[in-house]
Amino acid sequence: MSSTTAGRVKDPGDTTGRLVAASKVNGTAVYDMKGERLGSVEDIMIDKMSGQVNYAILSFGGFLGIGSEYYPLPWRKLTYDTGLGGFRVDIARETLEGAPRYERDSAWSDWAAVDTYYGPAI
Amino acid sequence: MSSTTAGRVKDPGDTTGRLVAASKVNGTAVYDMKGERLGSVEDIMIDKMSGQVNYAILSFGGFLGIGSEYYPLPWRKLTYDTGLGGFRVDIARETLEGAPRYERDSAWSDWAAVDTYYGPAI
Repeated sequence: MSSTTAGRVKDPGDTTGRLVAASKVNGTAVYDMKGERLGSVEDIMIDKMSGQVNYAILSFGGFLGIGSEYYPLPWRKLTYDTGLGGFRVDIARETLEGAPRYERDSAWSDWAAVDTYYGPAI
Repeated sequence: MSSTTAGRVKDPGDTTGRLVAASKVNGTAVYDMKGERLGSVEDIMIDKMSGQVNYAILSFGGFLGIGSEYYPLPWRKLTYDTGLGGFRVDIARETLEGAPRYERDSAWSDWAAVDTYYGPAI
């Protein structure tokens, strides 16, 4: 077993298929609409009952990975771009800079604030 | 930063809240309806367009983790049980033993076979 694939489900349809593994979404780069890299997906938040992904948690800001914070985004704002090999997010950098966020290793529960800022998650 | 939380988004509503982080679903134990442990969730497969979780990939079989295989299951078959601290799956062990599966480190793309075996994913 290769160490790079341990713990991950291989998905031959990774970029072209209908489905993607959660383990592949987590860690994927996120770009703005100009193609500038904003950060990466730290995790995704799923509605337990419906199985619907509601939010992606974007790791954004800081310098060389130091001081970045977590920005919950509505999942519908993310579109996978096969050319970039990552998600494009339809949110201006200035909008993101004023958005609800929380520090790494702290907890977040105010999803209503995220919905208020961006509009409903779904 | 504690090594046990690195790379994971803390979710204070982990067992009681509406949402759960994908990184917490992956690795979670899976039990049958009698409460016997079957294995654990290796990954979950998400519809890119809708953001709907369609399948959980169950790591099942083998002995002490050796020889287990991946069994794609419809997400709707899994219910989180706070008492067990894991998912209950409404599939008999005998049904699972005859189910579509694939070896670790190989690829799976025949989702239609999974739907045929268990009924539609969603």
